[in-house]
Amino acid sequence: MPDLVSQVISEIFSGEISTVVSPQESQKPDLSNLAKYIDHTILKPDATEPQVTKICEEAKEYKFASVCVNPFWVKHSANLLKGTGVDVCTVIGFPLGASSTASKMDETKQAIADGATEIDMVINIGALKSQNYQMVLEDIKGVVKAANGTLVKVIIETCLLTDEEKIQACILSAEAKADYVKTSTGFSTGGALEEDILLMRKIVGPKIGVKASGGVRTREDAIKMINAGATRIGASAGIKIVSS
Amino acid sequence: MPDLVSQVISEIFSGEISTVVSPQESQKPDLSNLAKYIDHTILKPDATEPQVTKICEEAKEYKFASVCVNPFWVKHSANLLKGTGVDVCTVIGFPLGASSTASKMDETKQAIADGATEIDMVINIGALKSQNYQMVLEDIKGVVKAANGTLVKVIIETCLLTDEEKIQACILSAEAKADYVKTSTGFSTGGALEEDILLMRKIVGPKIGVKASGGVRTREDAIKMINAGATRIGASAGIKIVSS
Repeated sequence: MPDLVSQVISEIFSGEISTVVSPQESQKPDLSNLAKYIDHTILKPDATEPQVTKICEEAKEYKFASVCVNPFWVKHSANLLKGTGVDVCTVIGFPLGASSTASKMDETKQAIADGATEIDMVINIGALKSQNYQMVLEDIKGVVKAANGTLVKVIIETCLLTDEEKIQACILSAEAKADYVKTSTGFSTGGALEEDILLMRKIVGPKIGVKASGGVRTREDAIKMINAGATRIGASAGIKIVSS
Repeated sequence: MPDLVSQVISEIFSGEISTVVSPQESQKPDLSNLAKYIDHTILKPDATEPQVTKICEEAKEYKFASVCVNPFWVKHSANLLKGTGVDVCTVIGFPLGASSTASKMDETKQAIADGATEIDMVINIGALKSQNYQMVLEDIKGVVKAANGTLVKVIIETCLLTDEEKIQACILSAEAKADYVKTSTGFSTGGALEEDILLMRKIVGPKIGVKASGGVRTREDAIKMINAGATRIGASAGIKIVSS
């Protein structure tokens, strides 16, 4: 596995693979309707029922792609959003990613039973940094299996990773057949950076989604991320993004 | 339930219950051996295997009460600490507390199967703030049941709560037959405060433990917390605390 990473890094920096998977060539981003990119997000631990309800109402009104809520709020959100076309996204092993694979799988199954239609899991960052790639892979595979066809995004927490680790995380996510890679939890030392979206898009190619999350607060931020290859934006400022 | 809280608050501020449960009267703290108070803690998401191993070795050497690690590291820590008398403490629904009760229960059972001997769960803060006390109670009861006799501490995340909510959280923890209340995750806006330890100790009485965690970095910090009623200290600076 490390050999593959070295190869990919050398190819990226030599420019060899940049044209192969450039999102700009294969799919020109559609900026006419930013709302469809937005996961309207409320993940703070002290979010109350009225606050979660408000997020759901807003997502309905603005036709956002989804609401992104903590697992406890999935049932409530799914009830409010039934039949609206707005997905209910939730977070697994969040935000540390350091729970056991078995627990992440249980949590995924429970969330889907409660009505979740998208699963944003956090990668096992400590295992990645310990170079236990097999463990990281099995962890993602476990969640993909538990999701049983429900869309899975893998949060790699870019702010804690070296470039090599980011590449490794993307390769493992693709290998585990995740649907998306996602930059950030929003609970660590940094959020989405344009350069990380470019890197992640280069690694995963055009067929896997890339979600920019953490610190995306304006229309300009969102457009920058989409032009860099993001196909989804996680934000609590969704209304500001689409209204400005 | 709110009536009970109002009653308790009025009794505290009138001084009526302060003498009944003052820890200073019922159990004079023993400051001769601070190590036995310490949960030697490493919860950062990017902790590596060598770092967790080091924490376990240190806990053995200094005879700390426990190591406190993320669930993924429980097996590894339990293997290293077998037969040493050092407990393996882990965290459940951590640090947001917003996973479902079913997931917290699954995570607890898995952690114990992996070798955990103490369980630090995070209360459902959003449900508490939504005044859904029955939900908060059932959530703690669920984890206590899943723990099946293994010691359970309830992290109430004091920095996000009003005094009334802190009192409510302590009452509910006691009612759910938890073994400890604990101030903080260390991942939010603040850590343990002396005034919170005093308040929590007043509410839970002498039979339930109180753990001060978050920002306890020196011997003076630790002694202040213990004198206020803490019976356990969660810290990553355990060696500094006992060595200075």
